[in-house]
Amino acid sequence: MARRARSNGKSDRRRGGGDEFRQLPYRQPQNPYQPFNIVSDDEIESIHLTSLKVLGEIGINFLCQESRDILKAAGADVKPGEPRVRFDAALIEKSLKTVPAQFTGYARNPAHNLEYGGNFTAFCMVASPPNATDLDNGRRQGNFKDFCDFIRLGQSLNIVHQIAGYPVEPTDIDAPIRHLVAEQAAIKLSDKMGFGYSLNRQRIRDSIEMVRISRGVTADQMLSEPSIFTVVNANSPLQYDVAMLGGIIEMARLKQPVVITPFTLAGAMAPVTVAGALVQQNAEALAGIAFSQMVSPGAPVMYGGFTSNVDMRTGSPAFGTPEYAKAVLIGGQLARRYDIPYRSSNVNASNAPDAQAAYESQMSIWACMLAHCNLVKHGLGWLEGGLAASFEKVIIDAEMLQMMAEFMKPVVVNDAEMAFEAIREVGPGNHYFGCAHTLERYQNAFYSPILSDWSNFENWRDGGSLDATQRARKIYQQLLKDYRPPALDTAIEEELDAFVERRIAEGGAGDDQH
Amino acid sequence: MARRARSNGKSDRRRGGGDEFRQLPYRQPQNPYQPFNIVSDDEIESIHLTSLKVLGEIGINFLCQESRDILKAAGADVKPGEPRVRFDAALIEKSLKTVPAQFTGYARNPAHNLEYGGNFTAFCMVASPPNATDLDNGRRQGNFKDFCDFIRLGQSLNIVHQIAGYPVEPTDIDAPIRHLVAEQAAIKLSDKMGFGYSLNRQRIRDSIEMVRISRGVTADQMLSEPSIFTVVNANSPLQYDVAMLGGIIEMARLKQPVVITPFTLAGAMAPVTVAGALVQQNAEALAGIAFSQMVSPGAPVMYGGFTSNVDMRTGSPAFGTPEYAKAVLIGGQLARRYDIPYRSSNVNASNAPDAQAAYESQMSIWACMLAHCNLVKHGLGWLEGGLAASFEKVIIDAEMLQMMAEFMKPVVVNDAEMAFEAIREVGPGNHYFGCAHTLERYQNAFYSPILSDWSNFENWRDGGSLDATQRARKIYQQLLKDYRPPALDTAIEEELDAFVERRIAEGGAGDDQH
Repeated sequence: MARRARSNGKSDRRRGGGDEFRQLPYRQPQNPYQPFNIVSDDEIESIHLTSLKVLGEIGINFLCQESRDILKAAGADVKPGEPRVRFDAALIEKSLKTVPAQFTGYARNPAHNLEYGGNFTAFCMVASPPNATDLDNGRRQGNFKDFCDFIRLGQSLNIVHQIAGYPVEPTDIDAPIRHLVAEQAAIKLSDKMGFGYSLNRQRIRDSIEMVRISRGVTADQMLSEPSIFTVVNANSPLQYDVAMLGGIIEMARLKQPVVITPFTLAGAMAPVTVAGALVQQNAEALAGIAFSQMVSPGAPVMYGGFTSNVDMRTGSPAFGTPEYAKAVLIGGQLARRYDIPYRSSNVNASNAPDAQAAYESQMSIWACMLAHCNLVKHGLGWLEGGLAASFEKVIIDAEMLQMMAEFMKPVVVNDAEMAFEAIREVGPGNHYFGCAHTLERYQNAFYSPILSDWSNFENWRDGGSLDATQRARKIYQQLLKDYRPPALDTAIEEELDAFVERRIAEGGAGDDQH
Repeated sequence: MARRARSNGKSDRRRGGGDEFRQLPYRQPQNPYQPFNIVSDDEIESIHLTSLKVLGEIGINFLCQESRDILKAAGADVKPGEPRVRFDAALIEKSLKTVPAQFTGYARNPAHNLEYGGNFTAFCMVASPPNATDLDNGRRQGNFKDFCDFIRLGQSLNIVHQIAGYPVEPTDIDAPIRHLVAEQAAIKLSDKMGFGYSLNRQRIRDSIEMVRISRGVTADQMLSEPSIFTVVNANSPLQYDVAMLGGIIEMARLKQPVVITPFTLAGAMAPVTVAGALVQQNAEALAGIAFSQMVSPGAPVMYGGFTSNVDMRTGSPAFGTPEYAKAVLIGGQLARRYDIPYRSSNVNASNAPDAQAAYESQMSIWACMLAHCNLVKHGLGWLEGGLAASFEKVIIDAEMLQMMAEFMKPVVVNDAEMAFEAIREVGPGNHYFGCAHTLERYQNAFYSPILSDWSNFENWRDGGSLDATQRARKIYQQLLKDYRPPALDTAIEEELDAFVERRIAEGGAGDDQH
């Protein structure tokens, strides 16, 4: 009955007759299907071996001295005064052995804990665009108000499992204290899994502490309960910078998960071929992952893929392309070869939350599902190749991801579902609307959309001929109106506020020395 | 160089600087990947066996006496004066044995011949909507001018392999002569594979004759060269009407391909469960296919799937849903079990060529690709659950299908593509724009879009902030402006015109007696 009521509510809302928003309940999807492989195991082995050759003969620049000391101690080929570090195959293989194949993420609200690895999938809000945009106000520089509104949407939408970064950069907050103010707000506005940026050592330390406070746990407990994510991008090609390496060191020592993600745009920061870009992606990912295990064996880490291509005419990055889909799928094959949880993204290069944004996103979402991607970053709201976060796109993505989560519920094939008796009862030329088999099931039989409008043309026209983007606008505005912050223990809130106040008074965090 | 020039041309066009339209060359894609199975072989067997039980115990109504005579002669259980026909399993199995696993379709232009079956895919224009729509003129009843314009687009777009029906119903032509006028125009406007509607015996005979004339071949030659398609829908549940059965008889006798497609909307004309709807789909498909082989063993035929669900709130059909995607995939598993070419569709229920139309279509297109669908009907232009053909959607679909065709080109993994030497040459922290490996490949490295705009926000804004649908409008209008009809031998044209003139003078074709 609940589903039926929801369906009616939605119908009313969509047609302007009400304002109730009904969505599927919160749950973390598990992919019941076989992963989809588009190259052979031999070809995966070739990519693997070639990336080991890159690591052995060409090497990776590690720009921070402390990281090179750790690498040297672990047996990597490090020459004094040189950033370049080379790895032999046995060292890489040995380091990969301690990577956990699966781990649990502990959210502020235990109902939002997540599993990473295996067949589990988690969808994240968009992270890090410098601009925000919506139909009413157009495109503007990222700011704290928009930042908060995106987090509110991420908290309200059950298909969002994780916030996973600033959904838009709050550039109106001074850089040294931005992480304090922004993450304080994020913790209060959402009880989903925490995050921090590895922009320097002090910032990530602050972030870890804020998440610890928010969960009301000890530092010791944190060591066995991964509670905060960070993403570390290689400065592709073949380079990790000081801030990113600092992030790996801080996070791995405290056993907090690091998503190691090379940024390998084929034709720009990586070879112009998909296979070549993946060789480089794999070399960079293996180096970063191995390094994390040298810092702290057993530290949770993910294999991140972000290989796409550029428009060779202009050099602009393109996303959600056929090449992107292929790279996502082969990235999944590589991550499974190493048995490491896999991160990819829902991306597009459209300047508007339109049909292009939808079809490029679908190329990404289908590839993620087929690749058994465990963490889908930028799941909701990403636009313009990551240069803008769109409020309407959040809703479009919520619908697309709900549909994919529903697709991942397996079809049940048994006597009751095969409905032989119903087919006999109804017989030729009749209809199934009133038969018992239908009446027992119709309330939950099918996916019930939040955005799609299935009314007939005349009703749709009479309701104002709103396209999906215009309807998305009404939905996100309603969600913001209806938003209520999740419960937060007063003592915890006070401790968090006191920490932030003190750290702001201390001046926040500057940049690391390079 | 051709590709590079194309890319520049497109860029100019998209930004209003020119009007050249460049697309990928015509070719029929082959799917290099494994089919994607979402239920087990045992579950497929259960669906198969339950559908045999439907055929054995419940049966199918065959509403035409001649068809029942044929069925009786072949060994089916037919009772005098009763429409209901029952089949035992052995009879079905025997009939399926003569179905060709693959066959060639012969187009008016041999360069547009198609393979049906195996890993081949063919994309078709939308067929049969009663309305046409575009941004400039809105929605109107189907008419001959729009009909011709859609065919022109289908001829111009290389990603269209087949027209496969009236892209919009030309309701301004009187019904008895509509097939004559419409197919005469279609033959002149396009040299791609022919089609006809099985609306009654005389009409499909006329259509076959027109296609024969257009190809300049004898009736004998036609027997070994399938040249015209028709789609036969069951009147689900469990019923075939007089016109459709007449179509099967006429077409199968002349060895022309029939796409047998049950119309099994779960919750309306089929059980409310996906498994139940598929049992019914399979029973109806097997009955129709078996009947075609009783008419003429070895006649080419396809297994059509059109199982979707209704909105249980309103009874409206929904398309491109998670349930639809699952049904497409399991339909593919069933067709492969029988080794019969498989037809599915690119569908959506949106009232506008917007983000919803795009994501519902992508749910369909991905499912079709993963299911190894051999014939994708309604590939371009379908809107409103089939009630309207949209000019802008044709272009949006062309882009999405081109992307999928490109996705079906396998990634090459060899030393040259893995680019070890390029990675060494470029080294850490540099870029690949100027390296030899890039320069040798950049012109053809990546998919080059026809509709997607990858320019940065400022350029896009300065170009008028056109969304994908508005850009699609400019593209289809330009294509219509640039359209040139394909060559047609004068003698053939005269013969075709004379045939049509004579048949119109004779009054065309009325309805069959039921």
